[in-house]
Amino acid sequence: MLPRLALTAGEPAGIGPELLVRLAATPLAANFVAIADRDLLQRAAARCSVKLDLIDDDGGQIDTRAPGSMRVRHIPLAVEEIPGRPDPHNARHVLATLTEAAEGCRGRRYAAVVTAPLQKSSINDAGIPFSGHTEFFAAQSHADVVMMLASPELRVALATTHLPLINVSAAITPASLERTLRIVHDELRAKFGFAEPRIAVLGLNPHAGENGHLGREEIDTIIPVLEKLRAQGMRLSGPLPADTAFVPAQRQHYDAVLAMYHDQALPVLKSEAFDRTVNLTLGLPFIRTSVDHGTALDLAGSGKADPSSLIAAAHMALDLVARRAMSSSQGHS
Amino acid sequence: MLPRLALTAGEPAGIGPELLVRLAATPLAANFVAIADRDLLQRAAARCSVKLDLIDDDGGQIDTRAPGSMRVRHIPLAVEEIPGRPDPHNARHVLATLTEAAEGCRGRRYAAVVTAPLQKSSINDAGIPFSGHTEFFAAQSHADVVMMLASPELRVALATTHLPLINVSAAITPASLERTLRIVHDELRAKFGFAEPRIAVLGLNPHAGENGHLGREEIDTIIPVLEKLRAQGMRLSGPLPADTAFVPAQRQHYDAVLAMYHDQALPVLKSEAFDRTVNLTLGLPFIRTSVDHGTALDLAGSGKADPSSLIAAAHMALDLVARRAMSSSQGHS
Repeated sequence: MLPRLALTAGEPAGIGPELLVRLAATPLAANFVAIADRDLLQRAAARCSVKLDLIDDDGGQIDTRAPGSMRVRHIPLAVEEIPGRPDPHNARHVLATLTEAAEGCRGRRYAAVVTAPLQKSSINDAGIPFSGHTEFFAAQSHADVVMMLASPELRVALATTHLPLINVSAAITPASLERTLRIVHDELRAKFGFAEPRIAVLGLNPHAGENGHLGREEIDTIIPVLEKLRAQGMRLSGPLPADTAFVPAQRQHYDAVLAMYHDQALPVLKSEAFDRTVNLTLGLPFIRTSVDHGTALDLAGSGKADPSSLIAAAHMALDLVARRAMSSSQGHS
Repeated sequence: MLPRLALTAGEPAGIGPELLVRLAATPLAANFVAIADRDLLQRAAARCSVKLDLIDDDGGQIDTRAPGSMRVRHIPLAVEEIPGRPDPHNARHVLATLTEAAEGCRGRRYAAVVTAPLQKSSINDAGIPFSGHTEFFAAQSHADVVMMLASPELRVALATTHLPLINVSAAITPASLERTLRIVHDELRAKFGFAEPRIAVLGLNPHAGENGHLGREEIDTIIPVLEKLRAQGMRLSGPLPADTAFVPAQRQHYDAVLAMYHDQALPVLKSEAFDRTVNLTLGLPFIRTSVDHGTALDLAGSGKADPSSLIAAAHMALDLVARRAMSSSQGHS
């Protein structure tokens, strides 16, 4: 029985619908259920010059899937898309696809959700406060979440995400850091199957502050939190200097890295695995992975968008679904 | 005729002397001139269990060098070293080796200098204000300098170096950024031989500020400086988001990256080329390269220190000497 994987198309005028079509064309062993407008997907297939076999989803299970076919849970557009030109009239459509995905995952109708990129500004232009997939799913599930970026070689969680650099220090408090570390630790156990996950925590300052010579946040905030959580049994190393934390000899000592801010770690991850980097949301009551790129409005409609990141996100979701199945069957034995 | 390459041993109680012995053992085509205490080097050779053929430097030229041999410009220690235990009585000795190296390079007695690591705190403990090789050479030469870290695949210059993260934004002013870019540009021409160097400038904030949504420094400081210097003919791209600036498809578009701060770029460089990363000082009237690690006091005396970085630094210095020779002979033709 193939896992039922929900796929959201994101912004109808972006590359998302075409990426879903490309994903359907792969032989990946999944029961893809696109949560999208049926006709939108067929138009995207035509733009990609591929045949797409869309089957209305009946909620059932299947054992095999022919490449080029996928299920669809039809949620109609408000207005037909014009590639490259997002229309705020479709904002509620986009949010309806996310709501169906989240509710379906919580209700076990889907094993996980993989999201294609959406256009935040277009939703805001419709007068709806919205700051991204991650925050939307977190609010819907009443969950504290942590963003993780992962490639097959490296998992990086972020203590802060999209903040001006000058605000990073103040955003990291003992309480926020402890909450983040607990989520990362718990999710490495629950979703990745590490019985005793090893987390490498980076310092905030160069050379991790060099004993206070290059900044005090390590001494005042990070080290006390690490000591508290270590005393409770967590396997935490650091605070480590960021510049040497990613060398091959270090990587064998941890299962994931907690970086203090966006540009401290993502350049490493993306430089070595750009099209294999997947965005994961930790802390949700379900598995959610995502591409790690935007709507590429300039490419939308051309049929030329590269589906590598969406394919990687689907692979990662399937891998996590399999790990969950394995650990819950072990739990029952 | 082999280039006369000055080598300083750095902290006598650190791994520097042993690294010089290991470098001498390579077949590298250079006339190595160690600026150090003769007996210190012989004791280091004994600790490494290798034979070292030390020849007093007479300032002359040679055409070949037998592996295991090097010249020495003897500058005596004040007290004999105890590996692992730096003695402030030797602080003036260390500074004398640096002074001889700098004066010799300026006087063309040496083609370049390669420095082994020193112990800043031990020099400070002797009551001498000192903040590092780079600053010492800059002050001696009355030069503004820029730190560059380079591997065979990537060159990264830094707009700020060893500062608490929270001070980075204020340290980058239009004047400082312009000065830095001019030095990087001029040195890529003068020392690396790029006729029209292409420099990729990173933003300060995540996503390079996303049009002001994630910070204003790009709009207020970086973009105006880039526009001014582009109008003067410099080939500058950016401000680029740091997370995607290092992906392979981007690298072909630049000869060097200017990063705004330490941990924005060094994790990339070191994760992919840890033992081949070399520290260069741009802006000096001579070529200076260095290892990019410390004195490793815990390893000193064991004969086990890895000389990879010093060997890489010597390679880089020789490469730059050869480029300089080529461009000055072209200039004369």
